[in-house]
Amino acid sequence: MNVRIAKYSGFCFGVKRAIKIALEAAEKNHEIITLGPLIHNPQMVRKLAEKGINSIEDFRQVGDRAIIIRSHGIEKEIYDYLKEQGVEIINATCPYVSKTQDYAAHLSQKGYKVIILGDKTHPEVIALKSYIEGEAIIVSKAEDLPEQKFDKVGIISQTTRNIEDFKELINKVLPLCGEMRVINTICNATTVRQNATFELAQKSDLMIVVGGKNSSNTKMLAKISENFVETFHIETAFEIDRNWLLNKKNIGITAGASTPDWVILEVYNKILECMGNSTLKVTRLDGIPGFKEE
Amino acid sequence: MNVRIAKYSGFCFGVKRAIKIALEAAEKNHEIITLGPLIHNPQMVRKLAEKGINSIEDFRQVGDRAIIIRSHGIEKEIYDYLKEQGVEIINATCPYVSKTQDYAAHLSQKGYKVIILGDKTHPEVIALKSYIEGEAIIVSKAEDLPEQKFDKVGIISQTTRNIEDFKELINKVLPLCGEMRVINTICNATTVRQNATFELAQKSDLMIVVGGKNSSNTKMLAKISENFVETFHIETAFEIDRNWLLNKKNIGITAGASTPDWVILEVYNKILECMGNSTLKVTRLDGIPGFKEE
Repeated sequence: MNVRIAKYSGFCFGVKRAIKIALEAAEKNHEIITLGPLIHNPQMVRKLAEKGINSIEDFRQVGDRAIIIRSHGIEKEIYDYLKEQGVEIINATCPYVSKTQDYAAHLSQKGYKVIILGDKTHPEVIALKSYIEGEAIIVSKAEDLPEQKFDKVGIISQTTRNIEDFKELINKVLPLCGEMRVINTICNATTVRQNATFELAQKSDLMIVVGGKNSSNTKMLAKISENFVETFHIETAFEIDRNWLLNKKNIGITAGASTPDWVILEVYNKILECMGNSTLKVTRLDGIPGFKEE
Repeated sequence: MNVRIAKYSGFCFGVKRAIKIALEAAEKNHEIITLGPLIHNPQMVRKLAEKGINSIEDFRQVGDRAIIIRSHGIEKEIYDYLKEQGVEIINATCPYVSKTQDYAAHLSQKGYKVIILGDKTHPEVIALKSYIEGEAIIVSKAEDLPEQKFDKVGIISQTTRNIEDFKELINKVLPLCGEMRVINTICNATTVRQNATFELAQKSDLMIVVGGKNSSNTKMLAKISENFVETFHIETAFEIDRNWLLNKKNIGITAGASTPDWVILEVYNKILECMGNSTLKVTRLDGIPGFKEE
């Protein structure tokens, strides 16, 4: 029996950085807030609240507190408004997301019709489109693209999308356009994580995907895994049902970019316990057999 | 029994234009030459020779004659040399090919590594790459691309390639690059002709592809057709073997962009004759049943 964790599971660079920025800010300030939850993981958000980091949904409620911009970024108009109001802004936007915003602005300024591959309700995409001059087209898959001709098209992606979906979109656009300028804004951490999940799913007879139910990149991992094997998307170890594990020989675990290591660990230990290995409790992620290799 | 000619068979805009320019020039000048055969069709080239339009292979043999640049264009260095020598240049480069040369120059000047989908021995591609600053990568299919990382890539195509091959190349490049700027330089006449061949081949039990054996776009039509049905690539009606037609019910004809109408007509009439319909001789292409529709 194998319980294996996919390589590159858990926090990405941008999430680690945002948490570090937030914790440092919380040490200095009496009260600090984020605009929307700092990351898409309720467990981590609760831990942050214990450190005095809370979130508001409406930027007009900021008052005279310092505000942290989360890794997904915020709309240009809101940023400009906060600046104008003299609010202290602590910018924890993931540098890869900022770069995508710059590309979006540049393409639209150069006269390219911008197409974004992404979820139009996701904060990263909502922020991204605000940097575009004129109306952007947002599609979550190639089929959603309206059948229209384009002269010059700029195509970018939400940083956590799947490269195969990006290819499909590009293939769909090519015969419809004169020029197509594609910036591969899918971040490398996303790609290597998805590839590792893809590989582990093929070697497993059950996959547990760990991460916020509202986490875009975690949902994408579940989607990839589902193509090969029975898959459950959970937020915490408490959701694990012993029946899922019956007669399973190779259990794979993967986790989104906003899933803390301790949440992954709890899942791993719970699975071992369910399988009768309760003595083999692991307390450090790099102590999990196979964590570095699979 | 059906004998059908694919829609959009025969001369494209660029070829018609080059022939018109050459014939007009021949009327005015005593002796006129082209650099390489004007079009990739030996039958038409012979007809042009009768009008005093001959070709030379080496540009240094031009002497004091006026020179016609054929639809494929010529290398920048040769053009500059001829200009410098004060040679009268009559430029019959297809405007779509010229445009591709402009894009190639622009992309390389902007710091993009240029990848060309095309046949590196074809005059259009030889000319095209001369407009690129630095070394271009030329591949005839996606597999030929070296596995290397690119920062900024510009991708263009020989005007007569297949869009599916172009898509494959783009899919291969995407994960290897940061930014990809694709100019769809496959000309529309190529695409509609290939699509018409694709459709007719699926409805036929024999396809005859008519055009120069050295014609890139004609070879591409044969390649498309071969995927569905027995296919013969011929230059003239004389090559038709009666045995090919035995027991065939639906015969399709398609022809490249450099194939004159009278060559297509001869093929059509020869097939009718072989099938015992010798009385039904057709003398005008638009008099061929189904020519406009298939």
